[in-house]
Amino acid sequence: MSPTIEIPSGVEWANGRLYFIDQTRIPLEFIRKEVTTLDIAEEAILSLKVRGAPAIATFASFALVLALREQAGKQLTLNAFLEEGIRVLERLLSTRPTAVNLSHAMRRMRNVFESGTVSSVEQLIDQIQREAEHIESEDKDLCATLGRLGNDLIGHRARIMTHCNTGALATAGIGTAIGAFYTAHRDRKDISVFACETRPLLQGSRLTAWELDRAGIRTTLITDNMAAHIMKEEKIDLVMVGADRIARNGDTANKIGTLGLAILAKHYGIPFYVVAPSTSVDSTLPRGSEIEIEERNPDEVRRFAGAQASPPQIPVRNPAFDVTPSELITAIVTERGIHRAPYSF
Amino acid sequence: MSPTIEIPSGVEWANGRLYFIDQTRIPLEFIRKEVTTLDIAEEAILSLKVRGAPAIATFASFALVLALREQAGKQLTLNAFLEEGIRVLERLLSTRPTAVNLSHAMRRMRNVFESGTVSSVEQLIDQIQREAEHIESEDKDLCATLGRLGNDLIGHRARIMTHCNTGALATAGIGTAIGAFYTAHRDRKDISVFACETRPLLQGSRLTAWELDRAGIRTTLITDNMAAHIMKEEKIDLVMVGADRIARNGDTANKIGTLGLAILAKHYGIPFYVVAPSTSVDSTLPRGSEIEIEERNPDEVRRFAGAQASPPQIPVRNPAFDVTPSELITAIVTERGIHRAPYSF
Repeated sequence: MSPTIEIPSGVEWANGRLYFIDQTRIPLEFIRKEVTTLDIAEEAILSLKVRGAPAIATFASFALVLALREQAGKQLTLNAFLEEGIRVLERLLSTRPTAVNLSHAMRRMRNVFESGTVSSVEQLIDQIQREAEHIESEDKDLCATLGRLGNDLIGHRARIMTHCNTGALATAGIGTAIGAFYTAHRDRKDISVFACETRPLLQGSRLTAWELDRAGIRTTLITDNMAAHIMKEEKIDLVMVGADRIARNGDTANKIGTLGLAILAKHYGIPFYVVAPSTSVDSTLPRGSEIEIEERNPDEVRRFAGAQASPPQIPVRNPAFDVTPSELITAIVTERGIHRAPYSF
Repeated sequence: MSPTIEIPSGVEWANGRLYFIDQTRIPLEFIRKEVTTLDIAEEAILSLKVRGAPAIATFASFALVLALREQAGKQLTLNAFLEEGIRVLERLLSTRPTAVNLSHAMRRMRNVFESGTVSSVEQLIDQIQREAEHIESEDKDLCATLGRLGNDLIGHRARIMTHCNTGALATAGIGTAIGAFYTAHRDRKDISVFACETRPLLQGSRLTAWELDRAGIRTTLITDNMAAHIMKEEKIDLVMVGADRIARNGDTANKIGTLGLAILAKHYGIPFYVVAPSTSVDSTLPRGSEIEIEERNPDEVRRFAGAQASPPQIPVRNPAFDVTPSELITAIVTERGIHRAPYSF
């Protein structure tokens, strides 16, 4: 029998109620909150209490359901109700205007509003709720498939290095790269994970170390600059990370630090795997050099978890991502399969 | 004419008075303190207000002078005074029992006590002070030579990456690797330095960024995991770092993260230089694999400056150093010259 492990999904819909884990309080506190108003939902996304592109999409979809239920009490005509619904949808969409999954989800919701097939407010809410449930279950299924395929690349007693957080907290399911670790753990593969802390925002130490440790997976936290020493000394078998955007040739944009890990892995002959949904593949991009890299607030680098660590005005570079060229990637896992060079997704 | 630049040595002896910079308050405050008692000197070393092996050696030598002056008021016989002096010396030595430079300096002081050539307390204090001044000026000269030789490897407009702090704060002079940057800057080479923050203790952001910026050298702070992206995007010309210990074959132990930088530099075809005094070469070590790596307190990784960033009990690896194999090193600079493989120091 597989071990029962507790996997804390970032977003949960149960008996018509919406819950989220306040990710800004992890690892200090584990707080599960219920969303009762649109304001709470909006604030949760804006303040990064709910984070991770797939988690946000599912969360906003159910928040729309709750907001519509609230509106239903106002006895509006169907047309006025539809207009009001679109306004709520746009408010939710604007919380994270660049999040691709959120805009996909809100487009599907808009299609329901605009389908012209509903004849009552109740029927509309029903259809919106069904669409939200589809979005959630599709994400769960996607994570499960990625986890299963990623697990095929993980051997018994594998010693794995990972970066950032690609876990259950970021999705409605078990996560992407980390989903493969959960799947391997359920398979009793006795894996060990080395989590890089992932400066500047420390998603590795705050979130990944927390969720893997909680699930009973043997987890060791390291600073990012220990990666080379640890690959060699701890005999790492594979590196597995997520992706933010993948070009047609397999070049992969992911959290800053990924490129360095890929170069180190190549130096030591360690396989380097990317696990991400096929929606991360941007077919308009022939290669990674065309991916624009967001430069973030310099204070993220100047400080550490709120503590000032450098001269306050010191010039800083703070690219959010880097691009790993496909020749450094052993394989890319999407829900469609395990892809290897030359890539066709 | 060369630009006048302000280089803040960690330790300063001026007009018979001993000063140090409180390095635990940098970069938040710049506090220069005078040492007036042995207790203050001892506490300054123990609490890391004075850090950097060469700085500690010079500091403790002058602290001994001050302590002897204090004792001189007690009107002891010469023999009793010599005994008391040895006790003070041993107290200073025990503040950092593994610091090689400190034990060298205290051995030289002990030789003065035991030489049998002094005939009065005043003469003894004189000789001890002269020895302390030798130790200080030798360190200044050493830094100047390392800086001059390191500067020979730095081109006009060079874009340099460095790690940890090997600067003026750590020595009585201008530093080791960073001394080369000061020398290049005085030579008007218009260099740019990218300082890796150096987790877990952030010597790069706290100290290196502070002292280079203060000296007017164009300095950019990055997190350690940005190194690969920055080497590529910012067209880094060379990496230059210090060393804690060098084996006979050139394998170099230095602050954790150095090995990763060397592998990345090799990947991008960027020269990788080590600058360190010849006393860092441990002739008893044939190769780096025999260097024992200190594992430090796990809370350094879990937190910084009191800010908790991970689950409090999460297992951690915290090696203080890593070992860069000599084949990844382009050249090692000591005061004796620029050494290249096969190494003979």
